[in-house]
Amino acid sequence: MAPVTFADIQKAAERLSGKIVHTPLLEAPLLNAALGFRLLVKAECLQRTGSFKVRGAMNALLQLSPDAKAKGVVAFSSGNHAQGVAYAARELGVTAVIVMPKDAPALKIANTRAYGAEVVLYDREKESREAIGEDLSSRRGLSLIKPFDDVRVIAGQGTAGLEIAAQCKSMGVAPDHVIVPCSGGGLCSGIGLAVTETFPSAQIHTGEPNGFDDAMRSLQSGKKEANDKKAGSICDALMSDGLGDITLPLLRSIHATGFAVSDEEAMKAMAVAARYLKIVLEPGGAVGLAAAMFRLKPKGQTVVAVGSGGNADPAMLAKAIAQYSDAALN
Amino acid sequence: MAPVTFADIQKAAERLSGKIVHTPLLEAPLLNAALGFRLLVKAECLQRTGSFKVRGAMNALLQLSPDAKAKGVVAFSSGNHAQGVAYAARELGVTAVIVMPKDAPALKIANTRAYGAEVVLYDREKESREAIGEDLSSRRGLSLIKPFDDVRVIAGQGTAGLEIAAQCKSMGVAPDHVIVPCSGGGLCSGIGLAVTETFPSAQIHTGEPNGFDDAMRSLQSGKKEANDKKAGSICDALMSDGLGDITLPLLRSIHATGFAVSDEEAMKAMAVAARYLKIVLEPGGAVGLAAAMFRLKPKGQTVVAVGSGGNADPAMLAKAIAQYSDAALN
Repeated sequence: MAPVTFADIQKAAERLSGKIVHTPLLEAPLLNAALGFRLLVKAECLQRTGSFKVRGAMNALLQLSPDAKAKGVVAFSSGNHAQGVAYAARELGVTAVIVMPKDAPALKIANTRAYGAEVVLYDREKESREAIGEDLSSRRGLSLIKPFDDVRVIAGQGTAGLEIAAQCKSMGVAPDHVIVPCSGGGLCSGIGLAVTETFPSAQIHTGEPNGFDDAMRSLQSGKKEANDKKAGSICDALMSDGLGDITLPLLRSIHATGFAVSDEEAMKAMAVAARYLKIVLEPGGAVGLAAAMFRLKPKGQTVVAVGSGGNADPAMLAKAIAQYSDAALN
Repeated sequence: MAPVTFADIQKAAERLSGKIVHTPLLEAPLLNAALGFRLLVKAECLQRTGSFKVRGAMNALLQLSPDAKAKGVVAFSSGNHAQGVAYAARELGVTAVIVMPKDAPALKIANTRAYGAEVVLYDREKESREAIGEDLSSRRGLSLIKPFDDVRVIAGQGTAGLEIAAQCKSMGVAPDHVIVPCSGGGLCSGIGLAVTETFPSAQIHTGEPNGFDDAMRSLQSGKKEANDKKAGSICDALMSDGLGDITLPLLRSIHATGFAVSDEEAMKAMAVAARYLKIVLEPGGAVGLAAAMFRLKPKGQTVVAVGSGGNADPAMLAKAIAQYSDAALN
């Protein structure tokens, strides 16, 4: 399996120049004071389509042959990768078919269609999205854009890490920790690779919801661990089947370790992000902040938490804000 | 009265360099499609202290004499200006006294104190804040930092307009309209002056809540108009006593016109900002978006709406998101 290199990420950044948003690295002095450490949040919720996924999707699509572009692409995703591929495909004039679980948030399904993709729904408990995706791929000659275990995708996600490193340098700060919400590990491994190139002593961490902490356990055991459940967290973006053949070795090579948080802690982090940072995060996108606030809590140190996505269900977001706005003060 | 010039704004930008956030100009393709025009939102909610106010406060404080800096500053405000002055003063090592009504929201008082300011509470019914300010000013030699009718403050707020112009240029777009939430007019006049220097044909508009539409009426009549009410809108940041001696002529010189929106429309704009742009706006900060969506609606054109602040009451924000997330689709 071809490893991903720092040069791949640099090339991805050149390829994506002008096609993606350079998202801000936000902080709030009052939040820092309440937490007792410095929290910098990479606001990928402000990225096109509301999540980081467009980085990897766009980087992969830009490298397709003219013939492959003409035939189109297929992707399977619970939501954010779907929107990223659909948006990137439309921007590049490529047909996209997206295979989505039928219990995915309605907003994510509607958005994927609004970006012009054909959506195929499946049953998460009974059907295999991989099988459906591969069938479409072979029947219609569509190129499969994997959500994470693909060098082009990981390199694309890593461009967020290049930005974090440059932003930290321009702020004159060296991050002690970088925490990244983790599903298949594409974002965390890409960002980890990019950040540790500039800041070798930065510790890289995955953030996951309780019950879907396969990355944390895989990084401990050194082999791919699975989760017992397939559903049951509000962090819909992070209920993956596990790390990939590329992402696990990559995360181990940069000595990443993992944290897991409860759904309630993710909601508290959503409320804190809204109150202090004035951004909307979805539950899965808030897991890095939650891990920083409720697990790591590194007194006096500097943490970069990646706010990976903001495609929150409005009812869930309203509930989090109404219930947990004082979460950072407790 | 010394007029504000474009050169004042350029000098303010140099003075503020590295001390404030260059806030992003956000857009969402799905929102543009739903609205039928291109909406670019200047996200000043992501500014330090959660509103644009720190720009003007910082620019004013940076121009104080060493003697004035050593003695300290005083400001009257129960909201965003209080926090802007308190934060700017702390960053520059200047003592700040903020005179706040004792019935101001506990959180705003707490935040102002958390930024290091000395808060002097007064009784709205029995005491005069001006008398308290004059007493503090003469007894302790504090410099008064006015909220809007001050060349240094207007020039500071105008730096947001310089950024808008540069961001539009780099996106290759010329704004047809720029809509700015308006209380005393400092932000709108500063931004209007800066933007029309680069884009002379851009039309500048104030946005206000119904019942506090003095700027709209003043721009029509050419003289300072007042409001009948002193309270009664959820847009607490925009319930001013009227435009100032500098801001009214300045707004007239750039041919600004005004719009007013209902509280419900402001809440709808808050929900739309959260859903599509992933940012938190307070009711007053969302009035520009609301005016673009519900009054101007310029089919096929490009509108810049300034999202001037994000210090929303959590209960109000949760209510807006829960009730009005489909507002752009209606």
